[in-house]
Amino acid sequence: MTDTHPFDDAIRLETVDAHTRRGRTHPEWANMVGPFGGITAATMLHAIESHPDRIGEPLALTVNYAAPIADGDFDISLRAARTNRSNQHWIAELSQDGDVKTTATALFALRRDSWGDTETRPPSAPDPERLPPTDPGIVRWTSLYDMRYVEGPIPAQHGQPSESSTTTLWVRDGAHRPVDYPALAALSDVFYPRVFLRRGGVIPSGTISLTTYFHADQHQLDALGNDFVLCTAHANRFTRGYFDQSAQLWTREGTLLASTHQVVYFKG
Amino acid sequence: MTDTHPFDDAIRLETVDAHTRRGRTHPEWANMVGPFGGITAATMLHAIESHPDRIGEPLALTVNYAAPIADGDFDISLRAARTNRSNQHWIAELSQDGDVKTTATALFALRRDSWGDTETRPPSAPDPERLPPTDPGIVRWTSLYDMRYVEGPIPAQHGQPSESSTTTLWVRDGAHRPVDYPALAALSDVFYPRVFLRRGGVIPSGTISLTTYFHADQHQLDALGNDFVLCTAHANRFTRGYFDQSAQLWTREGTLLASTHQVVYFKG
Repeated sequence: MTDTHPFDDAIRLETVDAHTRRGRTHPEWANMVGPFGGITAATMLHAIESHPDRIGEPLALTVNYAAPIADGDFDISLRAARTNRSNQHWIAELSQDGDVKTTATALFALRRDSWGDTETRPPSAPDPERLPPTDPGIVRWTSLYDMRYVEGPIPAQHGQPSESSTTTLWVRDGAHRPVDYPALAALSDVFYPRVFLRRGGVIPSGTISLTTYFHADQHQLDALGNDFVLCTAHANRFTRGYFDQSAQLWTREGTLLASTHQVVYFKG
Repeated sequence: MTDTHPFDDAIRLETVDAHTRRGRTHPEWANMVGPFGGITAATMLHAIESHPDRIGEPLALTVNYAAPIADGDFDISLRAARTNRSNQHWIAELSQDGDVKTTATALFALRRDSWGDTETRPPSAPDPERLPPTDPGIVRWTSLYDMRYVEGPIPAQHGQPSESSTTTLWVRDGAHRPVDYPALAALSDVFYPRVFLRRGGVIPSGTISLTTYFHADQHQLDALGNDFVLCTAHANRFTRGYFDQSAQLWTREGTLLASTHQVVYFKG
């Protein structure tokens, strides 16, 4: 029992040796099978960002969900495969009893001033205060977020298929924990599977690989604080048991915090 | 000297031991610095798909360009981190003289029949036969492709900035080599950097991390053969020296072969 937030509890790691960290699953972050993929992504990122050899801020993270993480302890082995002047490439693996459950690569980089522009536009959405919070309630971790759906809420079981796979929602940490890079990594996986929407019901499915590009610098995260993040996702193609999803995380002011993509298996 | 195609020459590998393959750079695939990132992605994928332990077809590939590959030999170490009933997770590293130059993770999977739909639409484009082939001519490898720009050709040096970062082009292997998974991996990186278009000129820049989701099954690749592929790319956000690109590869008949994303550094 601690007084800290469940997010910080879930990503907390102990140092086993220079290249190994130990964590454990947290019951409040439980998903259908194993933990919420977003908390695993956050934990992998946190292992790297808290490593003493780390330089810069997160720029890209790929997490491969190789097998369900069982309840209990896990070890993360991590290694800076290459350190350059302005960036650093990491490889990490999460294992339990010697079985690899998750693999990841991460790119950290020093940001510097440059020309900039955001070409993509955020979806139009009413302010979150004008929308009701809803908890799909299918899995446990969703109760840790304040989710307010703008478009494409989770369909009822045996609901109507939708022609669009787009979901847009405001999301805020339920205990108002400020958004940092691990929190952004978790929000990258905050969407229920797009196939639910297209098929009109809950269908066995799961993310197998997730890639996030972090656009926000620390200053933009500080400006965001613990405010709502506007999250929007759509699928491109569903075929032969898999689909891909592309998503974006926006601030209320229209700052693109992250672009994120994933491939998901589904049955049926 | 061989009679084979430069693509096959470039991705050819020798077995050093059970987990190591040796290849070498190919002068015709030279980029600004080191080889074309697409041929490196293709080589990493080929190393895995030709491994005797491999199951299934490529579903996702992430390649991290950690440092330029010098002209000459390189070794690829590869390992199946996890083999499940229907998919397999690989980790690979390309090194030269013990220095890591490239890291990669790949997901191979058995495809099976399922409901399917392509939600994204291809860009409108005239048939490639109605467009002239152009070779930007800035780097050597582009001469190995027949490229026909529909929208957003490479700007002239000191050209006009564009408000859109979108480029769409038809691409076909110059020697009509059929498209297989390594060829799709290479086409994922066929776009010149989006910042050229937005800034109106050639700007120092390079892909640092590339992720491709393969939608095409072998049957669809067989149907495509050596025909043109419609490639379209755009950027989402340029900020503090980096931007992300999202792209799609389409057949003439409107089959989405792959979705692909990357993060790119740039100066200026």
